[in-house]
Amino acid sequence: MRPDELAAREAVRDTIARYAHAVDHGRFEETAACFAEDGVLDVREMGRHEGREAIMRVFEGAGRKLASASTNAIVRHHVSSIQITVDVTAGRATASSYFFVLTEIGPDHWGSYRDELAREDATGRWLFTERKVNVEGRTAPSRMT
Amino acid sequence: MRPDELAAREAVRDTIARYAHAVDHGRFEETAACFAEDGVLDVREMGRHEGREAIMRVFEGAGRKLASASTNAIVRHHVSSIQITVDVTAGRATASSYFFVLTEIGPDHWGSYRDELAREDATGRWLFTERKVNVEGRTAPSRMT
Amino acid sequence: MRPDELAAREAVRDTIARYAHAVDHGRFEETAACFAEDGVLDVREMGRHEGREAIMRVFEGAGRKLASASTNAIVRHHVSSIQITVDVTAGRATASSYFFVLTEIGPDHWGSYRDELAREDATGRWLFTERKVNVEGRTAPSRMT
Repeated sequence: MRPDELAAREAVRDTIARYAHAVDHGRFEETAACFAEDGVLDVREMGRHEGREAIMRVFEGAGRKLASASTNAIVRHHVSSIQITVDVTAGRATASSYFFVLTEIGPDHWGSYRDELAREDATGRWLFTERKVNVEGRTAPSRMT
Repeated sequence: MRPDELAAREAVRDTIARYAHAVDHGRFEETAACFAEDGVLDVREMGRHEGREAIMRVFEGAGRKLASASTNAIVRHHVSSIQITVDVTAGRATASSYFFVLTEIGPDHWGSYRDELAREDATGRWLFTERKVNVEGRTAPSRMT
Repeated sequence: MRPDELAAREAVRDTIARYAHAVDHGRFEETAACFAEDGVLDVREMGRHEGREAIMRVFEGAGRKLASASTNAIVRHHVSSIQITVDVTAGRATASSYFFVLTEIGPDHWGSYRDELAREDATGRWLFTERKVNVEGRTAPSRMT
C-alpha cells in the first residue's frame, strides 16, 4: 500500500468520524460540510437529499424532533467495522461501515452506512458524494427513527 | 513508525473489516479468503478448524442455523478497539479486538478476537493464520450462539 | 497528509486501543503507562488525578469494586468514532471518541473520551497528557459507575 493510498484511507476515516461528532453535537453546518457541494444524503424511508443546504435541513429537522423528545438528549453515533476501498488516481473511494446510536438511556437505533467519497483537491479532504444510511433496527420507542 | 509498518497495520485493519462485512452478508468464500490457506479458525465451544474449506463449512452451518431462526435476519459484527502489533521483517502481526453483534431486534452476542496474521507476498494482503473467537456474553435467547 | 502525520495518528489510535485492552485485563501499570508522567485522568464525578501513581490507584480501586460485584467479571471497552487532530511540529494531538462497556451480562455504561496527547521523543509513542472520561449513560444497576 503506497503512502498516498494510506493518506486517502486515513482521510476517509477522518470524514466518517468528523460526521459522527458533528451530528452528535448539533453542529449541522459542519455535518453538511462533510459532503461535497452536490453530495447526496440518502436515508431509507426519509428520501434522497442533494446538496449541503438540503442536507443541513434534514439534520435540523431531526434535531428538533429529538429536542421535543428530551431536553437533555445525548446522542452518540458509534461507528465501527469501516471497510474502505480507494482509487487514488481517480480520487474516488467507497466505505462500508456500521453504526450504533446510544443515548443517555440506552441503545436507540443501529444500521449501516454505504459511502462514496471524492477527494477535494483544494483541501486534500475526502468528502461524501453519497452517503446511504440504512437503519436496520431500533429500540421501541426510538426517539429518532 | 515507518511507512511499511503503517501499511502493514492498515492492511491488518482491512482484513478485520473485510471479514466482518463478508460474514455479515453471507459471502462465506470471501470470509474464508481472509485466512491463509492453512489458517485456523478457533471458536471456543465450536472447536478448531484448519484450512479455508473447513472454515467455509463452519460459516455455512452457522448461516443455516441463523436462516432457520429468522427469514430476514440482519447480522452486523461491530468491531472496535483494535490493538495491533507488527513485525514487518518477519511479515507477522497480532491483533486484539472486540466485537458486538447486533441483529434487527437488538444485541445478540459479543466477545473478543485474538488474531495472528501473516503477509501474503503475492498480494501484499495480511491474512489470518489464526483467529480465536471468544464469545463472552449473549442475549437470551441468542439466535447464533 | 504527510507520512509523519499518518504515523502520529496511528500512534494515537494505538494508545487508545492499548488503554482499553490494558484496563480490561487488569493490567493497571500498563494502563497508567498510556499517560505521560504528569498526565491527568479526569473522570466526571470521580475527580482529577495527576501522575501515573495516582492514576493507577484509581484503576485499582475500580478493579476492587468490580471484583466485589462479580468473581468472573469480563469488562470490554469498545471504543469507536475516533476523531484525531495532530500538530506534528508541536508534538501535540487531540482525540475525541466514544466508548461502550459490555460485561458478560450486557451493556454496563457508555460515554465519551476527550484526550490530549503528546509525543514522547524517546519512544515515539503518543501519551495522554489528559484524558477526560464522561460517563453519559448506564444500565441500572451498573457494576462499575
